[in-house]
Amino acid sequence: MSDDHLQKVVSLAKRRGFIFQSSEIYGGLKSAYDYGPLGVELKRNISNAWWSSMVHAREDVVGLDAAIFMHPKVWKASGHLAEFSDPLVDCLNCGGRFRADKAPQIEAGTEVTFRAGGRSDGEERSGKVGERGYVCPLCNAPDLSKERQFNLMFRTSIGPIDPLEKAIHEIARAQMGAGEIRRKIEEALKPSSIYLRPETAQAIFVQYQNVQQSLGMKVPFGIAQIGKAFRNEIITEKFIFRTCEFEQMELEFFVEPGSHEKWLEYWAEQRMSWWKNFANSPEKFRLRPHEADELAHYASACYDIEYAYPWGWDELEGVASRTDYDLKKHSEESGAKLHFFDQQKTDPATGKAGVRFTPYVIEPSAGLTRGLLVYLLDAYAEEEGQDADGKAKVRKVLKLHPTLSPIKAAILPLVKKDGLPEYARKISKEFFDAGINSRFDEQQSIGKRYAKHDEIGTPYCITIDHQSKEDDTVTIRDRDTTEQRRIPASTAVEFVTGALSSTSAGATSVG
Amino acid sequence: MSDDHLQKVVSLAKRRGFIFQSSEIYGGLKSAYDYGPLGVELKRNISNAWWSSMVHAREDVVGLDAAIFMHPKVWKASGHLAEFSDPLVDCLNCGGRFRADKAPQIEAGTEVTFRAGGRSDGEERSGKVGERGYVCPLCNAPDLSKERQFNLMFRTSIGPIDPLEKAIHEIARAQMGAGEIRRKIEEALKPSSIYLRPETAQAIFVQYQNVQQSLGMKVPFGIAQIGKAFRNEIITEKFIFRTCEFEQMELEFFVEPGSHEKWLEYWAEQRMSWWKNFANSPEKFRLRPHEADELAHYASACYDIEYAYPWGWDELEGVASRTDYDLKKHSEESGAKLHFFDQQKTDPATGKAGVRFTPYVIEPSAGLTRGLLVYLLDAYAEEEGQDADGKAKVRKVLKLHPTLSPIKAAILPLVKKDGLPEYARKISKEFFDAGINSRFDEQQSIGKRYAKHDEIGTPYCITIDHQSKEDDTVTIRDRDTTEQRRIPASTAVEFVTGALSSTSAGATSVG
Repeated sequence: MSDDHLQKVVSLAKRRGFIFQSSEIYGGLKSAYDYGPLGVELKRNISNAWWSSMVHAREDVVGLDAAIFMHPKVWKASGHLAEFSDPLVDCLNCGGRFRADKAPQIEAGTEVTFRAGGRSDGEERSGKVGERGYVCPLCNAPDLSKERQFNLMFRTSIGPIDPLEKAIHEIARAQMGAGEIRRKIEEALKPSSIYLRPETAQAIFVQYQNVQQSLGMKVPFGIAQIGKAFRNEIITEKFIFRTCEFEQMELEFFVEPGSHEKWLEYWAEQRMSWWKNFANSPEKFRLRPHEADELAHYASACYDIEYAYPWGWDELEGVASRTDYDLKKHSEESGAKLHFFDQQKTDPATGKAGVRFTPYVIEPSAGLTRGLLVYLLDAYAEEEGQDADGKAKVRKVLKLHPTLSPIKAAILPLVKKDGLPEYARKISKEFFDAGINSRFDEQQSIGKRYAKHDEIGTPYCITIDHQSKEDDTVTIRDRDTTEQRRIPASTAVEFVTGALSSTSAGATSVG
Repeated sequence: MSDDHLQKVVSLAKRRGFIFQSSEIYGGLKSAYDYGPLGVELKRNISNAWWSSMVHAREDVVGLDAAIFMHPKVWKASGHLAEFSDPLVDCLNCGGRFRADKAPQIEAGTEVTFRAGGRSDGEERSGKVGERGYVCPLCNAPDLSKERQFNLMFRTSIGPIDPLEKAIHEIARAQMGAGEIRRKIEEALKPSSIYLRPETAQAIFVQYQNVQQSLGMKVPFGIAQIGKAFRNEIITEKFIFRTCEFEQMELEFFVEPGSHEKWLEYWAEQRMSWWKNFANSPEKFRLRPHEADELAHYASACYDIEYAYPWGWDELEGVASRTDYDLKKHSEESGAKLHFFDQQKTDPATGKAGVRFTPYVIEPSAGLTRGLLVYLLDAYAEEEGQDADGKAKVRKVLKLHPTLSPIKAAILPLVKKDGLPEYARKISKEFFDAGINSRFDEQQSIGKRYAKHDEIGTPYCITIDHQSKEDDTVTIRDRDTTEQRRIPASTAVEFVTGALSSTSAGATSVG
């Protein structure tokens, strides 16, 4: 898969109404995307498939949908206020700003050349790489500012108060220095400061007790959530792969300490198999254990589920063993007792019934929007085919798993006359009544309509032709094989329903 | 319905895992709520019912899911930057802050008394009501600050830049006055300022062209969206009725000018009937046309769909005729041509084929979270009943429409022995396989389990008893009538499926 493959998917996504850039008529907003009519259906289908496998199909998992706004103390306890930051550096030559940990590494003392001001017509200069061992990724210059930590959380102010009003008057009166003004402003902003959550996980930890108690859940059990999270990313890149606003599908699964290693393996395997189940190329998914030096401070072990993107293997989901780090931190900060009391067990120390412990947590944390990109990349194919007149033509097809396809069936009258549209509408209504998302489509030639539905991943095209009126049959065309066969019109809904309920991709071909 | 009714619903919502206060272990975040395991299912069910009726069941409507972050120019064009604000006043006596338009109206010149500092032990004072004709709603004092406009949009900063850094140094150097400092800070914040959308509608207008063109939609057609919106409300109130973070379900339906009055009536009627369809008390919904002086600046006519809340009739959904106001504003501000070209029509001026026009818009805009509150209020009932021992007891029951019920069927072994749990698990698995959200539940006495499932609105309880093992029958209990009947175990899934597919509330009773 090449970068070309990515460009083709980006282009199809725009052209066919899957993904548009946000505010495009205003020149677009960097790194924000809107999901169009087909994109929103694809996203819903992925998210519903996750929810039904993680929540509805399991006795030991329940759902949650928490607010994006949370109490600021949540982010103090979780460590995000102090530590969720990137090291930023300014280039003193070209004025660019970049992440120190992403800059090209060059041994300290090495002589490098660069252009003054970073301009191609600038005078050539040279200098030595400093002790930090990197140069500006934009202009190659070694003259750099100090590293500063830049917090990735978006901050806003809540409440009917202009937080700066009083501070501004004090600043004006006291004629402060820059450092003092900065402190004054921070102090003024603090009481009304609120953050957009940078992850959905913390809401689950904070509501652990409410959920556990209101439903009488017993460890091991999990709480699942799908929702938006926001990060002020310095580098946004690769279409919807890394954006400031994104959607997560997270499960926090609470287990007895000691059983966490077993559960980590269990969930890593479960999640791998879930992703592969909807893919054409399951070999492009892999499970990679983190090296010790990659582990987040809260994790005792972690797997990444990676996908072979056009730019190489990269993250799709993390499955982490978070120990009791989060529940303990929130216990300490809030004073709430985030324990589990197991009545079935005997306390070995006292011999009495009941053991109290802080559960360990296994967290499969997936990107919903990233998953959508993966399935588009996985599904897009170009095949040698023929146009309506039999001429050789490249066929573009989105081989989405039928469960994920935005439209399950296209209902197509062969021509726009002779009563065929009326006949087709009757069939269309049967599909609506059966709750199958289908589209009646009578514009353009039948060849162009097949090509369009191939491109948007519609698994079945049902064509109503003149023979339909004679013997009540229709043709059904399979997107992946392009084969058609004739079936009784009265069995069309049943055929598609049956094909959709089959769970593995590609197992539903016609003929 | 009384305030007491609201309190009972709030209490049940917390106790049974429907709705928790956000960050409750940290003392809670004012006006933010988390949807617990049952609340998230109820919310999904309402939202899916809306989507399926508004998008999937209609040929003329497609969906959209736009980012919360949009280009700031969107809010300039829409008027939100300049005008989306509340008039705020500070009380010079007690220091409270309030909305001028919500303050008690008293004729100018009227003599009023109040306590100094707003304290009950403060000295009694008196004063005359000013020309603006209101007093402080907190302490009754007439000594008030000027009205200031407070914008309701949440603002944050995007991009890897500390927007204030440079400004702070300039402020320190120049030793500015308060007004100048304010201007300097605003100027520094502006380039990176971004807003949380205060409504989902504008994203639809901004993407009108992309959606229309990529799918070849023809007017009349609509774009539907469900998503979060944020308003820095000064007064948040009545549980989840008015909160800073909420969810909207909006349709923008584009029509030919001249047909808009007909379409307004159509959508008002459609939406009323949708809400009533899931309600026990359809008479508590009403359609109220706006008076001319209530109309928003963009609307030519508007209906409110109101519900009889415990505090009286209040808004649930607005159905507005927005004319071509929004598309024209965005056309002007962006330069994009947000038109529709109708090839079927002949231009009366030139006699040529094709007419170009800016569509008018009909907007049914509903509150998803508000709808959830309405259905909880509608469903909650207390009835004279009996406990397991036949003693009189008030039965609390949530008579949710089965389509909305979080759990459709509870699978209950009568006792936790004699092989009944194993038998029940087999039936439970059949429900999972059929995609019906059900719960296996073996804790507590059967009476307590019935009471619990009544309280959470589970329409059917299926009980496995000793007879089940002998003749493969189970009992099925109807939540609303509490009647039970015995059916073959093999037909349990079919029974519930059939009952769920029935569309009107209450039409699925057993017996």
